[in-house]
Amino acid sequence: MTTRLAIVGLGKIARDQHLPAIGQCDAFALAATVDPVGTGLDGAAHFPDLSALLDSDTSVDAVAVCSPPQLRYGLAKQALEAGKHVLLEKPPCATLSEARTLIDIAEDRGCTLFAAWHSRFAAGVAPARNWLQGKAITSVSIDWREDVRVWHPGQAWIFEAGGFGVFDPAINALSIATAILPRPLMVLGGELEVPSNRAAPIAGHLDMQDSAGVPVRMVMDFLKEGPQSWDIVVNTDAGKLVLSEGGRVLETPAGRQEGEDREYAGIYAAFADAIAASRSDTDLAPLRLVADAFMRAGSTPAAEFHE
Amino acid sequence: MTTRLAIVGLGKIARDQHLPAIGQCDAFALAATVDPVGTGLDGAAHFPDLSALLDSDTSVDAVAVCSPPQLRYGLAKQALEAGKHVLLEKPPCATLSEARTLIDIAEDRGCTLFAAWHSRFAAGVAPARNWLQGKAITSVSIDWREDVRVWHPGQAWIFEAGGFGVFDPAINALSIATAILPRPLMVLGGELEVPSNRAAPIAGHLDMQDSAGVPVRMVMDFLKEGPQSWDIVVNTDAGKLVLSEGGRVLETPAGRQEGEDREYAGIYAAFADAIAASRSDTDLAPLRLVADAFMRAGSTPAAEFHE
Repeated sequence: MTTRLAIVGLGKIARDQHLPAIGQCDAFALAATVDPVGTGLDGAAHFPDLSALLDSDTSVDAVAVCSPPQLRYGLAKQALEAGKHVLLEKPPCATLSEARTLIDIAEDRGCTLFAAWHSRFAAGVAPARNWLQGKAITSVSIDWREDVRVWHPGQAWIFEAGGFGVFDPAINALSIATAILPRPLMVLGGELEVPSNRAAPIAGHLDMQDSAGVPVRMVMDFLKEGPQSWDIVVNTDAGKLVLSEGGRVLETPAGRQEGEDREYAGIYAAFADAIAASRSDTDLAPLRLVADAFMRAGSTPAAEFHE
Repeated sequence: MTTRLAIVGLGKIARDQHLPAIGQCDAFALAATVDPVGTGLDGAAHFPDLSALLDSDTSVDAVAVCSPPQLRYGLAKQALEAGKHVLLEKPPCATLSEARTLIDIAEDRGCTLFAAWHSRFAAGVAPARNWLQGKAITSVSIDWREDVRVWHPGQAWIFEAGGFGVFDPAINALSIATAILPRPLMVLGGELEVPSNRAAPIAGHLDMQDSAGVPVRMVMDFLKEGPQSWDIVVNTDAGKLVLSEGGRVLETPAGRQEGEDREYAGIYAAFADAIAASRSDTDLAPLRLVADAFMRAGSTPAAEFHE
């Protein structure tokens, strides 16, 4: 059965990634879009806000929440309470408490809540997890540097409180690390650099460890020009694993493999599976590490940021 | 059966609160103390570190971890892995991820892990929760102001990263609020004031709401001279509830009641019950709200703090 879907928040990520993936997924049909700006798309009803959609004659079964994270809780709560299944873009909410409340509501209403960690669907992630099984890991190094001006034009919310700053990309690294490493991670400390005219960090590093004491260090930079890096290196007793290009390319002593970018196709296939099985999928580990980082790491003022 | 207990971290809170409570509780006998400084107490073996205790002939069944929060995870992990029951002073760990890892280890080892939220055992807390049941709450106001120089002399760790700053007392307010209010709380925003020579906030406010949208505002000040305030006011359709003196005094339209300070007696009675029932008691809601506050609230530089 086809699930009639509404996209709430028709911004960059919705247009770049969600719409093409939905178009190629038989399980979903785009029935509506919701955004205060614009007039929507051909072939789908458009509404300025979610209440207008829910009050209308347009029927939807599920809602994909692609609005900035500060707005996700309120929209998801409204959708769940109207009996809709909900997909949350990453990070699923602005706080852990919001996410936990949504989990309770979804359970109470019998709806599927799906926290979409798109990087976990990158081509190299599942093979990386498999290759690491049974190997003794000695250290992990995460290098996540991109140019915010290139990848997030006009997205001022990223540097507002609750917008996550450089953790908006770096939480992708954490979503991969928590998926491929065999033991849970913990934040020991670090330093976050916050532009003096903004509320969220633009660079920094985190010192983490897993529960066996293996060191995991992450370096983040949102001002990287030139070659970008989205790399995770895992050193083991059987040699080095390198997951690069955000998880798309995997190199181990056994060789190199790369796949095409099918992250959002993977998300929607998994969302369809979760709906069909009447279950939720809401791992909060990456968001928990970010909250821990804000609580545990130091903060240093950095130069003003102007886009 | 008497549980043989070791106190790890023989600092202010251990001496002021834990020792008297243990002395009055039949369920526990103090068998050992652990601290790198000093020579301990008459009647209990003393060790400079936990490893020395665990390697010794002194047998203990349980460990109360009273060290600064930055050290709690490592000590608790070591104790649990040695098969000891563990009580954690508040906040239970420096991060949520540490606390969750300990929960897993305790379950794996069949040990009791007990997160001690002492303010929840204040005399007015249980009656406050009971009085609020079934009433329509319209707003909550938390006012938590104390003089760090009076209450935390020499405790420099409080203003280091992971030391929580003003949240060291304010997490007590959150432990009460999450115990007496009927619905979960979420952080919407706020502002934290961080001294320019320290890593943790010294004052600030948080705007929260519960899952029904009831506003909950908390004001925190660690530099309050003169009268101190540890007050929670809950406005309802049946009048105002005021819980003051950190939960010891309760006033409602039905009257005023106050009890003596028996918080740590309550903690050790509950810890004994949990051990007897072979279960853990590890509510992380107060710590989650603090992590959410660090992630969601803004940060403002404040004047240098010198003790």
